[in-house]
Amino acid sequence: MSTTLLSGRSLAKLIQQKAHDEARNLETDGVRPTLAVVVATDDGSTLWYVRSIERAAESAGINCRIVDLGHDATGQVLASVLKDLSAEPSVNGIILQTPLPPGVDADALVGHIAPEKDIDGANPLSLGRLAVGQPSFAPATARAVTEILDHFDIPVAGRNVVVIGRSAVVGKPLSLLLLERDATVTVCHSRSGALEKYTKAADVVVVAAGRTGLLNGGHISSGAVVIDVGTNVLSDGSLVGDVDEASVRGIAGALTPVPGGVGSVTTSLLLLHTTEAAREQSHALVRGTAV
Amino acid sequence: MSTTLLSGRSLAKLIQQKAHDEARNLETDGVRPTLAVVVATDDGSTLWYVRSIERAAESAGINCRIVDLGHDATGQVLASVLKDLSAEPSVNGIILQTPLPPGVDADALVGHIAPEKDIDGANPLSLGRLAVGQPSFAPATARAVTEILDHFDIPVAGRNVVVIGRSAVVGKPLSLLLLERDATVTVCHSRSGALEKYTKAADVVVVAAGRTGLLNGGHISSGAVVIDVGTNVLSDGSLVGDVDEASVRGIAGALTPVPGGVGSVTTSLLLLHTTEAAREQSHALVRGTAV
Repeated sequence: MSTTLLSGRSLAKLIQQKAHDEARNLETDGVRPTLAVVVATDDGSTLWYVRSIERAAESAGINCRIVDLGHDATGQVLASVLKDLSAEPSVNGIILQTPLPPGVDADALVGHIAPEKDIDGANPLSLGRLAVGQPSFAPATARAVTEILDHFDIPVAGRNVVVIGRSAVVGKPLSLLLLERDATVTVCHSRSGALEKYTKAADVVVVAAGRTGLLNGGHISSGAVVIDVGTNVLSDGSLVGDVDEASVRGIAGALTPVPGGVGSVTTSLLLLHTTEAAREQSHALVRGTAV
Repeated sequence: MSTTLLSGRSLAKLIQQKAHDEARNLETDGVRPTLAVVVATDDGSTLWYVRSIERAAESAGINCRIVDLGHDATGQVLASVLKDLSAEPSVNGIILQTPLPPGVDADALVGHIAPEKDIDGANPLSLGRLAVGQPSFAPATARAVTEILDHFDIPVAGRNVVVIGRSAVVGKPLSLLLLERDATVTVCHSRSGALEKYTKAADVVVVAAGRTGLLNGGHISSGAVVIDVGTNVLSDGSLVGDVDEASVRGIAGALTPVPGGVGSVTTSLLLLHTTEAAREQSHALVRGTAV
């Protein structure tokens, strides 16, 4: 069987264009969508990533405000900045960028991001709302997976979908998004034992464990769709996923590459979420309700 | 194979006793744990159920304050009562009893229950906190399942557990509790197609779909543990679960009966949660932190 590569790059451009169009529509309504990224690190690759978000935002007509609090910012300062940004009407979306200074607990901070501005789904309330079907933003990486499935017309309703990984940023929110789409969802993890017990029966396997070579061709059935969320940096600096691509090719029906798959869609979704947040907040203002 | 019946009644007594002991401990610290149940219906069976909670609470040394707002209470009144109870230091636990008056949206109300008093896990924030591993109360019915598994020494770590039902009150929170205990969890539902594809491979099957006779002996493997969360009232007034007991007996290794299984444990957990909430709130007062 020949394995179709599901590139995320063209999808990322489509989503970025959608964000751009929406930003223009908002501008005619007098709203300039604004994303705030709170940073408290001097880690080079993180700063590079944040600047890449800024560039993408600006090219989509979205303001990007980088709030750099320095690598020695305290939890108290971070909390107060997140509260201020949550209350600030000109800010529509907020990201708290990790890593944070040593000793600062991200879990204690994300609760300060107003849910309606929580465009990367970091506040537990966003996850809870997702679970009960109330409007909320899923983490961009989790939504990137369902956007790829939609884009390539891969159905999940009534199908057997196995998610490997149970993190709060990918595995759990993705499971909720898939359940919402009527998939039967199995969540595997490091304590699951032999993965093939589950993955061999799966129509779609999503791997989000952060372990190089975790899934190989022996784990899956012929024709299965494999979505690789892993991003592992090897010692030579190259980026690989959780899937052993060479062994999966020829068995899987389709596979997302790394790089150029799920990860390439994520930033565009942060922008789209920002415009969606701005739209919702401008409606709330018109309705006169608190956002 | 002979099927062991996993009765919940003796476990319920143990938990009720634990709540009682804890209430006594709190009393020596000057705290009388208090549960508030907000009611806005004149449905007879609901009022009967609420009075059964009240009796159980009182016999465990827990105050039970029934706040009956009448069957024509508005959403606004309900919201304001929930906010007041959330702010009232003498109240430790809050339940919003359903059904609510026609047109009143429970989803819009449960967000007003302070998470630290949300002893039946109704606020989406409680579910989100459960998902990210922060302290929170699971819905009592979901916790009743894990309490039964623990009580009868049925391990789930590394085992294949299938949950049938994806509700916000049982299926989803239970999946999170089981993942937390290292089970591999599959969530099936009305769109899953042939259930036996999943349930035949399961070590433990939990059925929480609300459909009489949904799971029968042909669905499971010999020795599987079957937990029946269903409570269906037949036209003759009798109560049955989602499991076809007669056909499962002799195949399942163990089975919870209905009535006398999961449901019988639930009320005792509402009481235990109330004492846990009271303990946590008294500590927070000592620490001088806001609860």
